[in-house]
Amino acid sequence: MDKEIVEFTHFNEAGRSKMVDVSEKKSSERMAVARGAISMKKATLKKIIDGQMKKGDVLGVAQVAGIMGVKRTADLIPMCHNIFISGSDINFQIDEANSRILIEAVVKNTGQTGVEMEALTAVSVAALTIYDMCKAVDKEMTIEAIYLAKKTGGKSGEFINPNHQ
Amino acid sequence: MDKEIVEFTHFNEAGRSKMVDVSEKKSSERMAVARGAISMKKATLKKIIDGQMKKGDVLGVAQVAGIMGVKRTADLIPMCHNIFISGSDINFQIDEANSRILIEAVVKNTGQTGVEMEALTAVSVAALTIYDMCKAVDKEMTIEAIYLAKKTGGKSGEFINPNHQ
Amino acid sequence: MDKEIVEFTHFNEAGRSKMVDVSEKKSSERMAVARGAISMKKATLKKIIDGQMKKGDVLGVAQVAGIMGVKRTADLIPMCHNIFISGSDINFQIDEANSRILIEAVVKNTGQTGVEMEALTAVSVAALTIYDMCKAVDKEMTIEAIYLAKKTGGKSGEFINPNHQ
Amino acid sequence: MDKEIVEFTHFNEAGRSKMVDVSEKKSSERMAVARGAISMKKATLKKIIDGQMKKGDVLGVAQVAGIMGVKRTADLIPMCHNIFISGSDINFQIDEANSRILIEAVVKNTGQTGVEMEALTAVSVAALTIYDMCKAVDKEMTIEAIYLAKKTGGKSGEFINPNHQ
Amino acid sequence: MDKEIVEFTHFNEAGRSKMVDVSEKKSSERMAVARGAISMKKATLKKIIDGQMKKGDVLGVAQVAGIMGVKRTADLIPMCHNIFISGSDINFQIDEANSRILIEAVVKNTGQTGVEMEALTAVSVAALTIYDMCKAVDKEMTIEAIYLAKKTGGKSGEFINPNHQ
Amino acid sequence: MDKEIVEFTHFNEAGRSKMVDVSEKKSSERMAVARGAISMKKATLKKIIDGQMKKGDVLGVAQVAGIMGVKRTADLIPMCHNIFISGSDINFQIDEANSRILIEAVVKNTGQTGVEMEALTAVSVAALTIYDMCKAVDKEMTIEAIYLAKKTGGKSGEFINPNHQ
Repeated sequence: MDKEIVEFTHFNEAGRSKMVDVSEKKSSERMAVARGAISMKKATLKKIIDGQMKKGDVLGVAQVAGIMGVKRTADLIPMCHNIFISGSDINFQIDEANSRILIEAVVKNTGQTGVEMEALTAVSVAALTIYDMCKAVDKEMTIEAIYLAKKTGGKSGEFINPNHQ
Repeated sequence: MDKEIVEFTHFNEAGRSKMVDVSEKKSSERMAVARGAISMKKATLKKIIDGQMKKGDVLGVAQVAGIMGVKRTADLIPMCHNIFISGSDINFQIDEANSRILIEAVVKNTGQTGVEMEALTAVSVAALTIYDMCKAVDKEMTIEAIYLAKKTGGKSGEFINPNHQ
Repeated sequence: MDKEIVEFTHFNEAGRSKMVDVSEKKSSERMAVARGAISMKKATLKKIIDGQMKKGDVLGVAQVAGIMGVKRTADLIPMCHNIFISGSDINFQIDEANSRILIEAVVKNTGQTGVEMEALTAVSVAALTIYDMCKAVDKEMTIEAIYLAKKTGGKSGEFINPNHQ
Repeated sequence: MDKEIVEFTHFNEAGRSKMVDVSEKKSSERMAVARGAISMKKATLKKIIDGQMKKGDVLGVAQVAGIMGVKRTADLIPMCHNIFISGSDINFQIDEANSRILIEAVVKNTGQTGVEMEALTAVSVAALTIYDMCKAVDKEMTIEAIYLAKKTGGKSGEFINPNHQ
Repeated sequence: MDKEIVEFTHFNEAGRSKMVDVSEKKSSERMAVARGAISMKKATLKKIIDGQMKKGDVLGVAQVAGIMGVKRTADLIPMCHNIFISGSDINFQIDEANSRILIEAVVKNTGQTGVEMEALTAVSVAALTIYDMCKAVDKEMTIEAIYLAKKTGGKSGEFINPNHQ
Repeated sequence: MDKEIVEFTHFNEAGRSKMVDVSEKKSSERMAVARGAISMKKATLKKIIDGQMKKGDVLGVAQVAGIMGVKRTADLIPMCHNIFISGSDINFQIDEANSRILIEAVVKNTGQTGVEMEALTAVSVAALTIYDMCKAVDKEMTIEAIYLAKKTGGKSGEFINPNHQ
């Protein structure tokens, strides 16, 4: 692998962190998909499923929190560029066999930097919100395996995570 | 277990989310410890270790981000109370055998609600920052197993996660 | 009415705005209730009602936004004290006769200043969110008559709005 | 009217809220004008008018708050896009006959989404700030009739509110 | 001077930054006064003075910005505790002889940590705002000598800056 | 000098502050360099230098804070446009002769408004953070002479501060 490519880009000559200069990069349409999960006791998952049907939709709150998290990414991640987001969506999938909820966030933008961090942050904030909403009944929940599943656009082009297909 | 205790507390009678009323709760000293990890390619981990010694300390940036994340928790998690934080610290441990970095956040407060969400958020933001700082060299990093390890104080008293001891 | 009481308190001797010094005030349990409404076309209201039953719960999103707005009040209102909120809830009531949605926010705290502004901000942000979610189908919605309905606690004691009982 | 057009756009197939994908929309110059009012006791209005002349300019503070509110809109309204604002202004008009202050906000941008929400938020925050600055002398103030007066630009073109001309 | 006292307190055993644990500290009433100045061309200062009398009050905007800056301090300064502010005021003094504006911020709180950073941040944000409002006519303004003038309360008691009396 | 050029641009016809309309301005590549310093006791400076080598890197934390401050500029400065930042870096230089640390921030963007305020804010926040990290050992530190050193791009073109070359 090319040495130039594999250096950390977020440090200046003094060895201190910087926000990378992207002014020479071309603007392009970009998309990122991140995934993660939160596992819990079977009784907790049952309550979440029941709440969707009746009163108390945990995932509805997590959805809003995750999408708002997309817009707070550059506030949270020090060297992350603040960018205009074209669109953002989150999907939950109940995995009863493994007693967990799968979370997928899709974020799109058109610009000089990508939205990988925004998608990963959306999944993280959605998972944290599920924890918060359910912690009165289950403190042993675990946020699991958050990763970048896919990205498109930008100079490095398409990336599909070879470990999760 | 008592049925009243195990109901979700974050919903009102209309089935909509609310910020739980804690005005009747006693103030107490509280502490929460959350843990997580981020795994990566061996070459990425080596770069982080080298950077600490020389130029480009990834974990120094993640430390600052995680502690600032503690103070942003109530902004991110919709039903979370905004609270005064007494103190906060983060520790990283290099786990070369498994090619990952272990992250532990400790948060303290004195008040009517605890700091579990703040500790979990600190670990999440620190892990996301490590991802951001290293993503130019490794897009396959995975944020792993973030959980509440321990909490003390409050009406429910001490909790030690039985799955992670 | 006493002249001392009716002066604006938010200005210093130079005639410039200040955050009032409340350090001599006693801490007390406080509560504020604010109300407002958003009126719309009958077809829009019908869609909102239908969405609650099926797919697309506008009011669930407005609920989360309003409660998060409570925590942003001191960020938005320049001379407003930043305070710890004990609890917060929002209720919506469908007023089909007048083709509008009534919004009521209740906020509680224990401290040296009250939560009137937090309750009024919650109603405003909830109403703005309903507008945002429905503006593709109805740009003529009107946010109506936001007012403080009631407050308790503090030196001035209970207030019940004589114009809205 | 076409059925496709009048559906809520802020929900995904699972019926959960999303930030609408605008990446296919054309960028255009856009402008939005929102209006509202805050009514109060005659004595309160007199104090505000007097303060403008002498010490204690309530509307000067509300002006700053409203314009800062424009920049916080995407932080407050969950599904609202974060956008670059080209310019923003607020104007107040004293309506002594009806003992109220009329508020008008104009916001401009060039982009793929409009600034209706930013203009409505500016009016709301300005009105809330007037309430805050005057609440020591008048708790019965009412925020009245906030609506979109006009918008230009974008695919749907010009809109002039037929109910308020 | 005692060696223990003069160590930096914001680092943990790994040499990384932390938010100091203040849970053992006693709560006390505290006050901090910070001062600074911004110097400019004589013509610029004249415009500011004229604006106060007529249209365009630069210092009124800087006043609001400085007080809002007090509430954002913990968001800006990484290891700073987020605290409740009891009151805050800013005063400007025109120093025509030296063609500059003197800025003084006073901040009060009751708690386990002081408000030195809040007062210094208020002066900084007020000075930056004056720069912003006047930069179209004078880009050579200089923000000068921001320092802590005085503090009271807390374990270390009163401090009066010996260099500025 | 042309009278039109030297008027304050941030006020409307009513004499109230506004965010200047830049929609007619051309987008261009822009850069701003701001400089400042913080002076301190010789013993304090020695500790900072020692910390860089060993445990406790004050300037590493100030670096992160300053760069995050760039992204918060429009939140802090009322009439400042919120903009996309292309890149940002901060450099510290130890000036042992004068017992102070020199701070230089460089910020770049491509757009209709410049990044002078962002660069000045970065220097201010970095200096405030150094104060915060060291205040336990030295309360007499002074933030000194923050100014715009240089800017390029935009209608007014290059500016080099004649007082600091």
